[in-house]
Amino acid sequence: MNQTGRTLKLTIQYDGTNYSGWQIQPNRPTIQATISEVLSRIENRAVTLHGAGRTDSGVHALGQVASFLSERNMPCSKMLRAINGNLPLDIRIVNVEEVESSFHARFSAKQKTYLYRIVRSEVVSPFDYRYVHHSTYKLDEDEMKRAAALLIGRHDFAAFATATEKEDTVRTLRAVELEFSSDKLNIYVTGDGFLRYMVRTIVGTLLDVGRKKFSYGYIKEILESRSREAASETAPAQGLTLLKIDY
Amino acid sequence: MNQTGRTLKLTIQYDGTNYSGWQIQPNRPTIQATISEVLSRIENRAVTLHGAGRTDSGVHALGQVASFLSERNMPCSKMLRAINGNLPLDIRIVNVEEVESSFHARFSAKQKTYLYRIVRSEVVSPFDYRYVHHSTYKLDEDEMKRAAALLIGRHDFAAFATATEKEDTVRTLRAVELEFSSDKLNIYVTGDGFLRYMVRTIVGTLLDVGRKKFSYGYIKEILESRSREAASETAPAQGLTLLKIDY
Repeated sequence: MNQTGRTLKLTIQYDGTNYSGWQIQPNRPTIQATISEVLSRIENRAVTLHGAGRTDSGVHALGQVASFLSERNMPCSKMLRAINGNLPLDIRIVNVEEVESSFHARFSAKQKTYLYRIVRSEVVSPFDYRYVHHSTYKLDEDEMKRAAALLIGRHDFAAFATATEKEDTVRTLRAVELEFSSDKLNIYVTGDGFLRYMVRTIVGTLLDVGRKKFSYGYIKEILESRSREAASETAPAQGLTLLKIDY
Repeated sequence: MNQTGRTLKLTIQYDGTNYSGWQIQPNRPTIQATISEVLSRIENRAVTLHGAGRTDSGVHALGQVASFLSERNMPCSKMLRAINGNLPLDIRIVNVEEVESSFHARFSAKQKTYLYRIVRSEVVSPFDYRYVHHSTYKLDEDEMKRAAALLIGRHDFAAFATATEKEDTVRTLRAVELEFSSDKLNIYVTGDGFLRYMVRTIVGTLLDVGRKKFSYGYIKEILESRSREAASETAPAQGLTLLKIDY
């Protein structure tokens, strides 16, 4: 262990229902703030926690990743217990490992995968309603799959970002997979990076294709328009889960 | 439809976390009170709802059954939508059907099955913690299965009821099944009827057998003692789910 400490990588799960998203904000409960406070208590100094993705208010995670510099000489298994012992039960650290000091949860990420869960049956389980979007519209599976295929690849996703997005809006989507069953639809979206609301706007637009508000080919026009108004409504936050980050 | 109306059987699921159990109590949120209020609004008169089992505070249900007399001439599918449309999302009616007027959710029940869920891994999922009991003790599977076998059959379960139980304490257990996996233990208990806290006291006692606090044969002595003090601590409510009622 050198003098500047060890870089620890945390894999994190959370039920985002009661949080205003990942990122620290004044006077609001956030995931980053909640974990940072616990780490600062354990490390006995102010700890900066770097997250891989800034999930929005109400969005969940099964495989969020974050890293921080630890100055405590504590085995990873003990660190995991110490953090979890001080966190609320809707946030859990599922893995702690030491990584190269060059590791950065956000900048080292190669790709991220999100899952959007839709329940199509008339009744949503009381054990699931916080984690799914309920939509009973009849959906045209083939049209939706054709639309999804048009989104894959390197595109300017300005139409799928917030209208005020100031970043470069070009991203590469590696996969958009639709898993249909009689009463559910799971949409898996993998990409090198995502703009704010991008996954949820893609989902909202695919749902409109499924409902035949427009045909799948219109996806090309939406992309080319680079206009947020061309795409559909953003699907609700509660259906979205950050599934995993690949490094 | 005759003048006294139709008897409707409801199959109900609920997350019991935020309720003081099934049965109506003054100034407390209960499942029975919440559903009765909705039914009374739909029927436009005070409706009495008969439940099959009085689940305790914090206990969940996947297959609770209740019945009431409906005077509205409404198809069952429409009644289901009307009730769910007015219930909070942690209580859902999953089926409505018309039954014989002699049907009574409680007295017509032949047997009930409860599931008790235990998570044995170090970390409990933030999506599951409300519905499981967390216990990381090493458990002797064979001893627990032998203990479970001794509980099956017709016994006086006074030792597994509350010390103040005034009812006849003889019940018949048809099955006590232990489903082990590396990080979980599901205990299924089926019987013709249950005393208050009986399933949870059985679970607490089986866990003590698993931890070798006493050997499986001691179950016989507990039963014979008819003394609540002989059995182990009642396992926490949150791990318990009323799974189904057979008629």
